[in-house]
Amino acid sequence: MEPEVSALLSGIERPSEEWRSRARQHLDTLTKPLGSLGRLEDMAAQIAAIRRERMSEPARKAVYVFAADHGVAESGVSAYPREVTVQMVHNFLSGGAAINVLARQHDVALHVVDVGVDTDFGEIPGLLHHKVKRGTRNMLHAPAMSREEALAALHTGYRLASEAAAAGCSIIATGEMGIGNTTAASAITCALTGATASRATGRGTGANPATYANKVRVVEAAVAKHFSAPAAVSSFEILRCLGGFEIAAMAGVVLAAAQHRMVMVLDGFISTAAAAVAVGMAPDALGYLIAGHCSEEPGHSILLEHLGLAPVLSLGMRLGEGTGAVLAMPVIESAIALYHRMATFTSAGISGATP
Amino acid sequence: MEPEVSALLSGIERPSEEWRSRARQHLDTLTKPLGSLGRLEDMAAQIAAIRRERMSEPARKAVYVFAADHGVAESGVSAYPREVTVQMVHNFLSGGAAINVLARQHDVALHVVDVGVDTDFGEIPGLLHHKVKRGTRNMLHAPAMSREEALAALHTGYRLASEAAAAGCSIIATGEMGIGNTTAASAITCALTGATASRATGRGTGANPATYANKVRVVEAAVAKHFSAPAAVSSFEILRCLGGFEIAAMAGVVLAAAQHRMVMVLDGFISTAAAAVAVGMAPDALGYLIAGHCSEEPGHSILLEHLGLAPVLSLGMRLGEGTGAVLAMPVIESAIALYHRMATFTSAGISGATP
Repeated sequence: MEPEVSALLSGIERPSEEWRSRARQHLDTLTKPLGSLGRLEDMAAQIAAIRRERMSEPARKAVYVFAADHGVAESGVSAYPREVTVQMVHNFLSGGAAINVLARQHDVALHVVDVGVDTDFGEIPGLLHHKVKRGTRNMLHAPAMSREEALAALHTGYRLASEAAAAGCSIIATGEMGIGNTTAASAITCALTGATASRATGRGTGANPATYANKVRVVEAAVAKHFSAPAAVSSFEILRCLGGFEIAAMAGVVLAAAQHRMVMVLDGFISTAAAAVAVGMAPDALGYLIAGHCSEEPGHSILLEHLGLAPVLSLGMRLGEGTGAVLAMPVIESAIALYHRMATFTSAGISGATP
Repeated sequence: MEPEVSALLSGIERPSEEWRSRARQHLDTLTKPLGSLGRLEDMAAQIAAIRRERMSEPARKAVYVFAADHGVAESGVSAYPREVTVQMVHNFLSGGAAINVLARQHDVALHVVDVGVDTDFGEIPGLLHHKVKRGTRNMLHAPAMSREEALAALHTGYRLASEAAAAGCSIIATGEMGIGNTTAASAITCALTGATASRATGRGTGANPATYANKVRVVEAAVAKHFSAPAAVSSFEILRCLGGFEIAAMAGVVLAAAQHRMVMVLDGFISTAAAAVAVGMAPDALGYLIAGHCSEEPGHSILLEHLGLAPVLSLGMRLGEGTGAVLAMPVIESAIALYHRMATFTSAGISGATP
């Protein structure tokens, strides 16, 4: 392992099984048939195990949206021109994007981070400036990032999430914006799981049939160029060669979340690709993840299965930006609220079940 | 059709296709790839079609939880004794049940209605008194309700929901409590859809194998007793013979919701059985329904498929009380908020997609 990477992995331990079983015992005393809250009970127990506490309320929630450009966008893989990355960052900052609406509604602090957009934003209120470079290299021709670049982006996510933890954040989510980034996520999915390019590649923001066919070819060629024997390579190398600055930064958030015992809510395909890379680097980070939703991108299901995660929502969304993660937040908070606030059979004087 | 039933069906028209397509057009101008909000877009368009307006915010939300006892509970179909219905009503009134926690969290007005609990509650703050009778008859031996009783319960739900509409409620949900009522819902499912008792019957609140086997036999026998040729009978007769007071009341809520153009959010199996009865009586009510979740009860999937509804959530819950409906509310409200508050491509100056 690269020494600069190892530093990010120290102190990551699995969530506490002792707290999980303590939470399960408490859940079984509440006024409901055993197990009848289904996945809400699993989430409550997982959160107790992550937090090693009785899950204080209200949760402090944050979503970090990382924006970056991709060299591979020049290869005609997206329905949208590259300048949309810049335009959408402005939309985030002026509050008009889907993620703004959802974050306001569900009381989630939204942070917009430039880790590699191909423009000079200059002084612009509300944007966190952590640009590594104006876009990655085209992975068809060269590794998307140098070692130093990938580490810089990874460290940015890690640092921001660590600061969030220090400020009391307990539930953190990732989101992204970057024209071309479903292509990167598909390539990562192939390299990590061995899936074929045609299975792991979707229509992204709405590629037409010709663009889609080209996208599949690009994914296949990029994976073949860098990884003739995928099984032998490290997750960090996969990230570096096929990823993007926003993907690296989101992987850094996952590592910090696990280290600082925050609940880590994943958004869609790209966010989950970043988490899969992070779990490749630090397998014990897995227990900190909640999959907010399952997107329409076929590669997302492959990754969720690879990680063994069941999504909270399945609403056919494919927008990114953190929207699926933030939309899952009220459900996650309901799990916490039920755990804390329901009466017990004893306190309510209610008869139990026949065994 | 019974004359007293027909009165409840007048004025029910399908949601407006003109408003639905107007909403679709607006959604396509928002700063997101076309269709990328998936089912949230479908819901926003459905709600516009239901409300025939630009979906004013904030929504005013209510959940009506109807409690009643079931004669069939004496036949040993539940893991819990019958007195739990009464005990849980007290739990609702003192704020300790799951539905209390969720309704508070998601700002939904909770109304608890006695339509047939086998006790005399006397003066008790917060309870709406609409008891038809202290429990239905055992459907194994006789129709669960007389014509008059079924109509009284139906009218109660209808009247309460009509009053909610008059008070400005725009999103209404049903929930229930009644030991034995998954048995009734399974019998209704068999009679309405032709499903076998073994497919339509689940473990309810957690029946052990012996209780479960008995429950399947009871469902089968009850359906056979009242409906030798199910296709020939009316939904009202199915409700009357196999239902319960809370199921009839919830069917009444559905009819009033459709008449007063409210968004009708269904909870789990029993709530959906009531809606299926209502749709049998008034097919145009279907377009007003949103399935809040899909429960673990196998009959629920059968009914959702019968109605052609896709649930918002699938979290393996099987609690009832309206919990799945209320948990879906923040997602439904997000659909409305996104519709209203996102920027358009034009207003945000963002480039469009390549067709």
